[in-house]
Amino acid sequence: MSLKKEILHIAVQAQKASRFLVTLSGEQKNKALKAMAESLLKNKQAILKANKKDIEFAKGRKMPGAFIDRLTLTDKRIKKMSDDLMSVIALSDPVSQVIKMWRRPNGLNICKMSVPLGVIGIIYESRPNVTSDCAALCLKAGNAVILRGGKESIHSNLAIYKAISQALTKCGFPQGCVSLIATTDRAAVSIMLRLSNHIDLIIPRGGESLIRSVVENSKIPVIKHYKGICHTFVDKYADLGMAEEIAFNAKVQRPSTCNAMECLLVHKSVADKFIPRIVKRLKKAKVEIRGCPKTTKLVKGVKRATNEDYATEFLDRILSVKVVNSMDAALAHIVKYGSKHSDAIVTDNFPNGMKFLKSVDSACVYLNASTRFTDGNEFGLGAEIGVSTDKLHARGPMGLEELTTYKYMVMGNGQIRK
Amino acid sequence: MSLKKEILHIAVQAQKASRFLVTLSGEQKNKALKAMAESLLKNKQAILKANKKDIEFAKGRKMPGAFIDRLTLTDKRIKKMSDDLMSVIALSDPVSQVIKMWRRPNGLNICKMSVPLGVIGIIYESRPNVTSDCAALCLKAGNAVILRGGKESIHSNLAIYKAISQALTKCGFPQGCVSLIATTDRAAVSIMLRLSNHIDLIIPRGGESLIRSVVENSKIPVIKHYKGICHTFVDKYADLGMAEEIAFNAKVQRPSTCNAMECLLVHKSVADKFIPRIVKRLKKAKVEIRGCPKTTKLVKGVKRATNEDYATEFLDRILSVKVVNSMDAALAHIVKYGSKHSDAIVTDNFPNGMKFLKSVDSACVYLNASTRFTDGNEFGLGAEIGVSTDKLHARGPMGLEELTTYKYMVMGNGQIRK
Repeated sequence: MSLKKEILHIAVQAQKASRFLVTLSGEQKNKALKAMAESLLKNKQAILKANKKDIEFAKGRKMPGAFIDRLTLTDKRIKKMSDDLMSVIALSDPVSQVIKMWRRPNGLNICKMSVPLGVIGIIYESRPNVTSDCAALCLKAGNAVILRGGKESIHSNLAIYKAISQALTKCGFPQGCVSLIATTDRAAVSIMLRLSNHIDLIIPRGGESLIRSVVENSKIPVIKHYKGICHTFVDKYADLGMAEEIAFNAKVQRPSTCNAMECLLVHKSVADKFIPRIVKRLKKAKVEIRGCPKTTKLVKGVKRATNEDYATEFLDRILSVKVVNSMDAALAHIVKYGSKHSDAIVTDNFPNGMKFLKSVDSACVYLNASTRFTDGNEFGLGAEIGVSTDKLHARGPMGLEELTTYKYMVMGNGQIRK
Repeated sequence: MSLKKEILHIAVQAQKASRFLVTLSGEQKNKALKAMAESLLKNKQAILKANKKDIEFAKGRKMPGAFIDRLTLTDKRIKKMSDDLMSVIALSDPVSQVIKMWRRPNGLNICKMSVPLGVIGIIYESRPNVTSDCAALCLKAGNAVILRGGKESIHSNLAIYKAISQALTKCGFPQGCVSLIATTDRAAVSIMLRLSNHIDLIIPRGGESLIRSVVENSKIPVIKHYKGICHTFVDKYADLGMAEEIAFNAKVQRPSTCNAMECLLVHKSVADKFIPRIVKRLKKAKVEIRGCPKTTKLVKGVKRATNEDYATEFLDRILSVKVVNSMDAALAHIVKYGSKHSDAIVTDNFPNGMKFLKSVDSACVYLNASTRFTDGNEFGLGAEIGVSTDKLHARGPMGLEELTTYKYMVMGNGQIRK
């Protein structure tokens, strides 16, 4: 079979399976999830063996330690993958929920009801747990899923996929419910991205270059997560003790994440007091500071920030700091350099707080809290398939609800249009 | 200024204006809408004069009568445009609505709130009233709008745009709130469709070829309305009197619309009774019937339907008719030939009705009612900017709510992540 035919075949099977999935009750889906979770544990040895191959290959290619760590599976990590599937069972079924229902003067009953999207394609990089995670979340939302992982984890992904597939077959689910593109040929992705008659949504999970290349080539709608250049603005009316805790947390608690702060904006009237204190604490935590001219005057030994710094998602222990003359200047800075992900204000002034929440055009805007809370679990969504920096369909942390669409069910007793 | 710079300038101004619009109250937006409605009437003579130019040009190019009719403005039609703007005032503000709000165990208050999308681009064909309609709906939802109409109505569009602009300026609104791309150069559209940093959504309004070309070229999310190949399935358990009224209405009441029926499916056990009767009535209404072999046996003088007929949106007094052996066969036909727009079942059997509503993957699914109700006004949305055949973001009739997105406003008192 040619590669094109092979990918098309997978997509057609997935579409067929999606018509099966749409008819299932929550109970039936949960039964399958449980079987999947158990099958991961049962096939642990096979998965670990496959993972070893990937690790050896990565070591041979002298990949960095962090990369190999992300790739590595252990007994504990497989247990965690299995547990994660079990926790999806506990989430409420996002499908067949009545979003709204109303009655028209002519007696028509219109019901806006949540339904699965259909077929979802996930394109991801080297974490093998994404394979089981995404399969479970898509399935719970009634969607068929086509998985395409990075070539570095192909053996692990195949072994995980096999375990999942066995479980689904045992539960009487058709093959296409979860598919994995087994070839590492890059052309497979380009082919997949053109199948807009068969695939309803593409979610890329990985670095910015992966996402940009998917967007550039896709004829299917894509939900993107570009980057998080998150700001914390310490207002003139901030409780500086609180501001310190929030800023420190936003930068240091886990600097490698998209919701970590990359730029601290400080109102000029509190800069003298606040900047030396927070910089001292950050430096102790080994954070490199890159400051505006005023910042460098306030604290010795601070590197000057360039415009490029303000536009960079460091994902590391680096922070740019800028003193602003007014709240409007802070807002203008966020417009210019922000990434519409997560931004926070610390203030005790009500109008300023409200103005910030309303004006800043980001997925998540915070008043007196750390931007690190932008996360499906922290929001209480129970699960997260990603954080969308798009505005269409889904914005911010995406849970199960965002993996559904709706349709209108219109029930009448013979109504015709006049 | 080069064309590229010109279009970019328009988009940048629109983005600036969108930051102004997001801060407005419903009252302020309504005041502007009222001024726009009044300005259309005040500038009636100028609009009619400009429209005359377009009509003369179209007549010179020997455009068909229906085309010229759509293009033509009269006193009455301008009054209607103005009235339509006034009726947008009466609609409730879709912005700053709390969609959901909840409190996390750590005391964070998370508010999912509706907000404008930002900048919307509308690409449309020759109806000049789209200019004022879309401007009003986008504005009411707090969005800046960039309008790009067909070259056939360029003079009318410019005159309408001028009237709207004057009103907005008088109300103190910045230029970019409503923009019109004045050049008829086709390259302008390609340039516009690449400005994904400035425009948040593209809505094409027109025929399938316009939409396909927009989708092919756009780097901005597009909400599409492809076509409506709508089915009515007359089940074994249908009330045949009701089925006749519904089918007749769905085909004949306005055949040129996307929600008109294009294919009638009839269960074999009622075909003998139902088909002769409905065909007789449709023929009287000058509808051409193209039938399956069984249909042609039941009624004399009926043309045989081809597979291509089943896949065609006739938008005319033509109907394909097919006898099916079972409900599953009807569902399979809809999967194969349907366009996911609107499909109906007529039945008195509860399980069959529910199965149809659940299984058919269309934006609107009907039980015992005409598909002609797929329409923003008929649904009670108060307005309609289009009917989406997409599944992402908006599906089916799009009202004001679908011109918004949401953001999460998270309010705390010093919460940090552990």
